Amino acid sequence: MDTSSIAGRSVAAPAPARPEPGGVSRVRVAIAGASGFAGQELIRWLAGHPRVRLTAAMSSSPDGPVRSLPALARIWDGVIEPFSPAKLAEEADVVFLALPEEAAATIAPAIIQRGVRVIDLSGAFRLRDAAAREKWYPATTLGSLEPVYGLTERNYSAIQGAQLVANPGCYPTAALLALAPLADAGLLAGEVVIDAKSGISGAGKKPSDRTHFSENHGSVSAYGVFGHRHQPEIEQDLGAPVMFVPHLVPLDRGILETIYARVRQGTTPRDVSEVLGAAYRNAPFVRLTGEALPEIKHAAYTNFCDIGWRVDTAGGRILMVAVIDNLVKGAAGQAIQNFNVMLGFDERTGLLPLS
Amino acid sequence: MDTSSIAGRSVAAPAPARPEPGGVSRVRVAIAGASGFAGQELIRWLAGHPRVRLTAAMSSSPDGPVRSLPALARIWDGVIEPFSPAKLAEEADVVFLALPEEAAATIAPAIIQRGVRVIDLSGAFRLRDAAAREKWYPATTLGSLEPVYGLTERNYSAIQGAQLVANPGCYPTAALLALAPLADAGLLAGEVVIDAKSGISGAGKKPSDRTHFSENHGSVSAYGVFGHRHQPEIEQDLGAPVMFVPHLVPLDRGILETIYARVRQGTTPRDVSEVLGAAYRNAPFVRLTGEALPEIKHAAYTNFCDIGWRVDTAGGRILMVAVIDNLVKGAAGQAIQNFNVMLGFDERTGLLPLS
Amino acid sequence: MDTSSIAGRSVAAPAPARPEPGGVSRVRVAIAGASGFAGQELIRWLAGHPRVRLTAAMSSSPDGPVRSLPALARIWDGVIEPFSPAKLAEEADVVFLALPEEAAATIAPAIIQRGVRVIDLSGAFRLRDAAAREKWYPATTLGSLEPVYGLTERNYSAIQGAQLVANPGCYPTAALLALAPLADAGLLAGEVVIDAKSGISGAGKKPSDRTHFSENHGSVSAYGVFGHRHQPEIEQDLGAPVMFVPHLVPLDRGILETIYARVRQGTTPRDVSEVLGAAYRNAPFVRLTGEALPEIKHAAYTNFCDIGWRVDTAGGRILMVAVIDNLVKGAAGQAIQNFNVMLGFDERTGLLPLS
Amino acid sequence: MDTSSIAGRSVAAPAPARPEPGGVSRVRVAIAGASGFAGQELIRWLAGHPRVRLTAAMSSSPDGPVRSLPALARIWDGVIEPFSPAKLAEEADVVFLALPEEAAATIAPAIIQRGVRVIDLSGAFRLRDAAAREKWYPATTLGSLEPVYGLTERNYSAIQGAQLVANPGCYPTAALLALAPLADAGLLAGEVVIDAKSGISGAGKKPSDRTHFSENHGSVSAYGVFGHRHQPEIEQDLGAPVMFVPHLVPLDRGILETIYARVRQGTTPRDVSEVLGAAYRNAPFVRLTGEALPEIKHAAYTNFCDIGWRVDTAGGRILMVAVIDNLVKGAAGQAIQNFNVMLGFDERTGLLPLS
Repeated sequence: MDTSSIAGRSVAAPAPARPEPGGVSRVRVAIAGASGFAGQELIRWLAGHPRVRLTAAMSSSPDGPVRSLPALARIWDGVIEPFSPAKLAEEADVVFLALPEEAAATIAPAIIQRGVRVIDLSGAFRLRDAAAREKWYPATTLGSLEPVYGLTERNYSAIQGAQLVANPGCYPTAALLALAPLADAGLLAGEVVIDAKSGISGAGKKPSDRTHFSENHGSVSAYGVFGHRHQPEIEQDLGAPVMFVPHLVPLDRGILETIYARVRQGTTPRDVSEVLGAAYRNAPFVRLTGEALPEIKHAAYTNFCDIGWRVDTAGGRILMVAVIDNLVKGAAGQAIQNFNVMLGFDERTGLLPLS
Repeated sequence: MDTSSIAGRSVAAPAPARPEPGGVSRVRVAIAGASGFAGQELIRWLAGHPRVRLTAAMSSSPDGPVRSLPALARIWDGVIEPFSPAKLAEEADVVFLALPEEAAATIAPAIIQRGVRVIDLSGAFRLRDAAAREKWYPATTLGSLEPVYGLTERNYSAIQGAQLVANPGCYPTAALLALAPLADAGLLAGEVVIDAKSGISGAGKKPSDRTHFSENHGSVSAYGVFGHRHQPEIEQDLGAPVMFVPHLVPLDRGILETIYARVRQGTTPRDVSEVLGAAYRNAPFVRLTGEALPEIKHAAYTNFCDIGWRVDTAGGRILMVAVIDNLVKGAAGQAIQNFNVMLGFDERTGLLPLS
Repeated sequence: MDTSSIAGRSVAAPAPARPEPGGVSRVRVAIAGASGFAGQELIRWLAGHPRVRLTAAMSSSPDGPVRSLPALARIWDGVIEPFSPAKLAEEADVVFLALPEEAAATIAPAIIQRGVRVIDLSGAFRLRDAAAREKWYPATTLGSLEPVYGLTERNYSAIQGAQLVANPGCYPTAALLALAPLADAGLLAGEVVIDAKSGISGAGKKPSDRTHFSENHGSVSAYGVFGHRHQPEIEQDLGAPVMFVPHLVPLDRGILETIYARVRQGTTPRDVSEVLGAAYRNAPFVRLTGEALPEIKHAAYTNFCDIGWRVDTAGGRILMVAVIDNLVKGAAGQAIQNFNVMLGFDERTGLLPLS
Repeated sequence: MDTSSIAGRSVAAPAPARPEPGGVSRVRVAIAGASGFAGQELIRWLAGHPRVRLTAAMSSSPDGPVRSLPALARIWDGVIEPFSPAKLAEEADVVFLALPEEAAATIAPAIIQRGVRVIDLSGAFRLRDAAAREKWYPATTLGSLEPVYGLTERNYSAIQGAQLVANPGCYPTAALLALAPLADAGLLAGEVVIDAKSGISGAGKKPSDRTHFSENHGSVSAYGVFGHRHQPEIEQDLGAPVMFVPHLVPLDRGILETIYARVRQGTTPRDVSEVLGAAYRNAPFVRLTGEALPEIKHAAYTNFCDIGWRVDTAGGRILMVAVIDNLVKGAAGQAIQNFNVMLGFDERTGLLPLS
């Protein structure tokens, strides 16, 4: 984790200008992989973004049908087209990839070579360590690419100049926003346990036994024990071993992560409050709730990450709860937040009313 | 509707003997189509049935894997075998078919010819009118078969001697139990509207967009308007035109049907109460709730059908609400109830404690 | 139903100017009853409304605590104050009342007398017939008040000049948007059956057995048979008898109404399509889905009313499905839509991006 | 933890005879606190118990109304009576208390003094340490009472002779069944983290903001951090510090606990499998699922506790998942299991078909 980006953000924030270019100019934007949950969420938010012109929304297949999205009528009245890499690069200044990671790994370099900036929602470019990347995302070859990890609140400066943003995974977004400032401040001690509960939309749009209504209604299930690829993604920016177990809970949208950690001897609630308060002083999408632990309901359908905590000073322990909407701050929303940063817009543009 | 069966039931009920044969004797029973929701529900109940020996539980495919059902461990510790018609007929005295209707239409005659009695949970043999059957179930040929419609409370006598019972559809079960006694008594006047709400298990175990958790959570949808094959099934025993629209609601198990009808001039709540009370005097699985309209929750996981009603005497209207568990009284439970009647057992055996 | 308002709307729409006053001017708005579901939904939408300055959000009690709404932090950072009628009238140009109807009936006249315009979300001023109003809303006295029924798409012109808008009930909103144009065109014949399914938020925020999670999860229940006060509200603008039964279904937000009606001999799908198409040609919040029946999911969290239908020409029947979010188009959203019309703003302002 | 009880169970199990007294004899049983969720679950199961005669079901208040339970009609057709301690002791051989703990603490001694055996579902008598009991259950005074902790699988022998059984809490039941055998075998090393997810019925039947449908639908929330009284209950039989955080998830019935622990260097999956296999060799209600982690759905509505696990031998870690129905194995079912043991019946009686 490049902590200078944080410092850079709070200190130099006035500097980067965030120039709001005049009047009606809009950036040409295209989406590849618009049929999935994240893709449709991108359409929903980008359609109302005042600085965006959505020039193309493509499915992930060149043979896909042309079709409209009745659920989004009046919000977006375009059509989803078959996948066409050539058109992507021609008609857009910025491309959002919501494709399977193999496809993203393949197509991203070609698009960037055409001078188009890319925000990739897959995992293809998230891991910095070559060996880890080879293990979890074997289809990826970096070549001359220099992907920037798009956890906006942590990498603001680097994102501003990025050609390729690797948009974080949903689980790492919540985990790192809660833990990374404490790790930076040296407050954490020892292993961290992250017990994550996710809505079923996190399992994707493809029908399967796992996503069948009857398998999930009235039930909870754990998966990916000792083998979820979001674990190395969390560890790479935390610098500490993590025990991470995700669960599916019977709701559609949202993630709640319960985080159990040991803290440096003598750590008080005020210490934690100060560290997090400083880290997110200028972060419009992080809401610190303190002792009042957050609930999924409050962050669902928004780009907020809500973080609460309790500290057991005598016992040297902390319990944190972090909540996001997996399709917004955990995918499409953060991607748009990164887009805003890349383009020099206020990062709230299109995501929150600018009062 | 053969109303003599009702009369036969209440009057002659002492007569049909229901002999409870001595001690340990158990009937050999097999299931074909044991992998679906109805099939697994059959296993669950039959495994605890004191007069049944479950000799085989087969999937619907001859190539299916042999597999156990961990969710039913300790309740039933057998294995699901590949489909084998020969074995079905050899090892069972009674066969439950929980197959797609084409498969049921094909296999049932062969099994019956071997002297084995069949309870078919598909729609293949439900319609009596040849033209209607040809339209909705084209794979069915009756030949010398004489299927008995297995709405237990209405056809008790005929079921006792049946070789082939056509177990009713889930929607018709609730609709007919509520309406048929009123139709028999001449209380209904004009068209009936049936608005049905079903849990998602009613859409089957096969994963699809329609059964995806995210499509149903927080939503309600109508389907099968003007074209659901349960409509002719309801009409055939009601003798009146029906407007029937089923909906999927975000729960797993259960059906609630709201029924709107006109009643004969001057009909009072007491009239309705007397007609239904007489019809179900000896029916252990029909609970009449009167003005206290039933809710799905109370009938879920049971073989009950709960029926409530309100009568607007001045307006000549009745509003009925009927509730069942679609997998129990609407499928497996009623099939076992029919099995009990066929074998001369108390119809509650294995379904309700015999106090 | 004053059908001239429809004509007035499409024809005279250019006339009423909808003047978009210059730059930064904002209307002072206050909410009474801000603690309930509708009140909080008003806050959520009004906080982002570009022409509104929210000067006060009050609970329904003068003794209520001052409190913030953590779930809305960053969206609205104000506090809910105790109820103060005097302050309401002093600090606002328009007041939204989300109070119990007795309170609304009492307070509205006083506020209006002070020259402040009122949008009342309770039922107090919805019924025009004095006898019906006396029966269902006995606390209401009209005096010199001339409430305008705020079904925006039907009463656009009258709403423009209204001092007191009676915002429609959630059930009547969906029912009337679907049916009223057909009634106006003389297509309906005979009684109409409306089977409504509502999320639990429709039962209000007050904890009770009826709103307990465990009573509703996995269940469906009917209520208000032959006695729901939304029935006369539907009938007053439909001019036809209605059989209306609402149900609670296990979801939070949204209503789906299934409507069964008889149509004039020979009515075709095209007839219906033309009538509805004409009625809603300029209505941004009504989406006609034709044969593709709408689902709650698509309208939830929006101000849309989605309407689909199937016509059985030979049988002389129509089946309609109308869907809204009960808290948006069924309450707060439509109230804001009416506010926009009253103030001469584009009716989409603050509710839908103005492309 | 008295581990001899385990040995006693497997070894001496033949000894305690479990005499199945002849024919029709039934034990007279009464319930106090029959109106709550656990109380109604007791009625449901006891009504079908072949060795029980349910002589009284009382609410928790002497002023409560006499009322029937329509949802249980045909399963139990008795009435709930006002609370009467005198009648409890007169008409029952065994009393189940499903009362608030203060009431249970007060009434239990008086009943036992009358020679009636008591199974208490509250927490009043669960903690053995006097200081801990004083802190968490100040209303309790033991006097000459010798409560036996009713975790059936662990305390079989002691339960046989008990006059007062303290039925375990729902969370401790799942946690201890998973962990205690490993603790006994010396496999655990260091602190244990237990992240528990419970259905809303665990929050009780009383309506509140916390149990409102809309607060829980689509949400997850943590509660009781660093202060839930089930934590000392878990620790007392585990002999190790526990970090325990319960959550409410949007379902009605069931608990899933995800357990994170360190294990003794070199511990293999086989070690764990052997220890648990030995502990539960004769336990009909514990199902070990090994690497196939259990889900709530499979244990809901049953008295099973399903336990699965994954071991990271190199890392010295274990991940366990334990699942129960909070109202059955976590309350009423285990109480009846204890009743069976106390009376010398097969412990499955009335809970599982005796094949």
